[in-house]
Amino acid sequence: MHLDELETPALAIDLDIMDRNLHRAAAYAHDHNLRIRPHTKTHKIPELAVRQLSLGAAGITVAKVGEAEVMMKASPRDLLVFYPVLGESKLRRLSKLAHRTRVTVALDNLVAAAGLSEAAVGNQVEFGVLAELDVGMGRAGTQSPEELAALVRDIVRLPNLRFDGIAFYPGHIQKCGKEAESAMSRISALVDASVERLHAQGTAPAIVSGGSTPTLYQSHLIPMMNELRPGTYIFNDRNTMASGACGISDCAAFVLTTIVSTARPGQALIDGGSKTFSSDRSTLPGFGEVMETTGVLFSNMNEEHGYLDTRASDRSFSVGDRLRIVPNHICAAMNLHERVYGFRGGEVECVWEVEGRGKLQ
Amino acid sequence: MHLDELETPALAIDLDIMDRNLHRAAAYAHDHNLRIRPHTKTHKIPELAVRQLSLGAAGITVAKVGEAEVMMKASPRDLLVFYPVLGESKLRRLSKLAHRTRVTVALDNLVAAAGLSEAAVGNQVEFGVLAELDVGMGRAGTQSPEELAALVRDIVRLPNLRFDGIAFYPGHIQKCGKEAESAMSRISALVDASVERLHAQGTAPAIVSGGSTPTLYQSHLIPMMNELRPGTYIFNDRNTMASGACGISDCAAFVLTTIVSTARPGQALIDGGSKTFSSDRSTLPGFGEVMETTGVLFSNMNEEHGYLDTRASDRSFSVGDRLRIVPNHICAAMNLHERVYGFRGGEVECVWEVEGRGKLQ
Repeated sequence: MHLDELETPALAIDLDIMDRNLHRAAAYAHDHNLRIRPHTKTHKIPELAVRQLSLGAAGITVAKVGEAEVMMKASPRDLLVFYPVLGESKLRRLSKLAHRTRVTVALDNLVAAAGLSEAAVGNQVEFGVLAELDVGMGRAGTQSPEELAALVRDIVRLPNLRFDGIAFYPGHIQKCGKEAESAMSRISALVDASVERLHAQGTAPAIVSGGSTPTLYQSHLIPMMNELRPGTYIFNDRNTMASGACGISDCAAFVLTTIVSTARPGQALIDGGSKTFSSDRSTLPGFGEVMETTGVLFSNMNEEHGYLDTRASDRSFSVGDRLRIVPNHICAAMNLHERVYGFRGGEVECVWEVEGRGKLQ
Repeated sequence: MHLDELETPALAIDLDIMDRNLHRAAAYAHDHNLRIRPHTKTHKIPELAVRQLSLGAAGITVAKVGEAEVMMKASPRDLLVFYPVLGESKLRRLSKLAHRTRVTVALDNLVAAAGLSEAAVGNQVEFGVLAELDVGMGRAGTQSPEELAALVRDIVRLPNLRFDGIAFYPGHIQKCGKEAESAMSRISALVDASVERLHAQGTAPAIVSGGSTPTLYQSHLIPMMNELRPGTYIFNDRNTMASGACGISDCAAFVLTTIVSTARPGQALIDGGSKTFSSDRSTLPGFGEVMETTGVLFSNMNEEHGYLDTRASDRSFSVGDRLRIVPNHICAAMNLHERVYGFRGGEVECVWEVEGRGKLQ
């Protein structure tokens, strides 16, 4: 089946570009002696986790127990839940997985650590723990090397927990290259101070885990970091483009859409909106990048309608025309699709169910 | 099972409030002699469509063929697809449904009408058509009574189409009450002019279909309108609150969340973000309304993290605390949940699969 025969809107994946993206990251990690545990929340497809593992990934990362359960199909020998797991029921589910593979949880507080330990004892398993440090994003994570060290002192006292190391997420760095260097240098200093303090108290971290897609190929600027957890790099998206870390020819995933109305002059409506792309914004204006033509702004959206402002374009737009659009945020878009279509040269080669979509708990 | 036992994040529905919302709209429609074809894209649950039909709805509205297929479980005697249906494959699926119930499609262009007619002839069915008029939202719809009349002249010449009337969506009216009156008066004048022109050319519309949730209880201000298609009214949401059309005690649906980190002073992180609520904005600041307490701003979100700015609150927030949060846009939130939990008095009474979620085509 050719892409042109798919009902729209549909999420399509250029397998050649995806393979190139995967190989490039694997080669970088290998060259710099970095472990890679890719965050599979981007694709949510076990078969793609298998590809990442076969290219040398040390394990995989997920955000939720529900995602972890789905990703067990990829038989990861190592599974990191980069999210605190709270509540008896979820911890019971996670314990079941720990009977089958090595499970690590990232967390930033003692309540989460104590709950994890209690579940581990009760279910006769061991969990690895990464203690999270906030390196400037202002989301989760202990707020200083001192707080981090105090948390780690508590963690190592808790039964059935294995202190594996520390983790951070530099999600606040939205530009790569020269512009990222000073932020990465600040992170490196903070990480050095944290490792030093942990070493001094006899709890040296084996793993120092970080990394995001925009900063992926600058990871060596944080010398103490020995593990990467990029997610988006497998496909890239408009946010990656906005960061300067890729061009549109590196974007493997797009939404195939159809124009459904041109009733309003200077506007073409497409059959994809927030239910198809997500309503995630970007640092660039608009909700996606039209691949076929320049001068079109994806200016607004409702659930089922995308508004293309075509006034600055010299091409004509007719009802029934198809357009390929790179989403701002591919992870959020993937979560909205039941299945996606992998293709080479326009021919659909595989259809993948997005098995990890909607796994909220 | 009590709500407190549910794993979070979970979307819960207060059935008493939902029933009150449904009865209020049904009574208003009855009192004003208005047909009601509720837009089921809000809930996406066949059993709730059954409730709407049992309360007097003349039929139901959907946005996509995939939603229509799901909603056939509710055995609607009348089904409106408020979206142009393009492409042979989708039209074939729609034709199948037209063998089982009365199907109408809203559209604003001849390409869509001609395709619909061709499919109707080929599949030996009849489709009703509503011609769409833009009443100020600037999305879909013919741009004037003249353009509308010209489209209708084309529609009535096409075989196997039944011209049922006209339709509009006043989605640009985001405030109800006094503030909406002048906008509704402009719409009413435009509708009057359209009906007059259609009448003059011998194509008088049987149905004049409009209505949104914010303007629902002011529908009588557009006297020619004889059908309503509200969606959100069944639950209401923060956008409905922002419009002035309801208070928080009228919001039937909320997301039950758990605080997962308080590491950063003045901030509590909850386990729901854009994958749970959608990243839809509101005219109010923030991404949702915390029900338990005032002074908390849901200031930011990532996929799995909601950031609550707690600096203006005098209550304390601890890891493990549960909070109920009304989403900005309940339709978008429903689409993200595999199932939702109906409760009365805190006890879960039913679990509904959101069967229409993710139906993009």
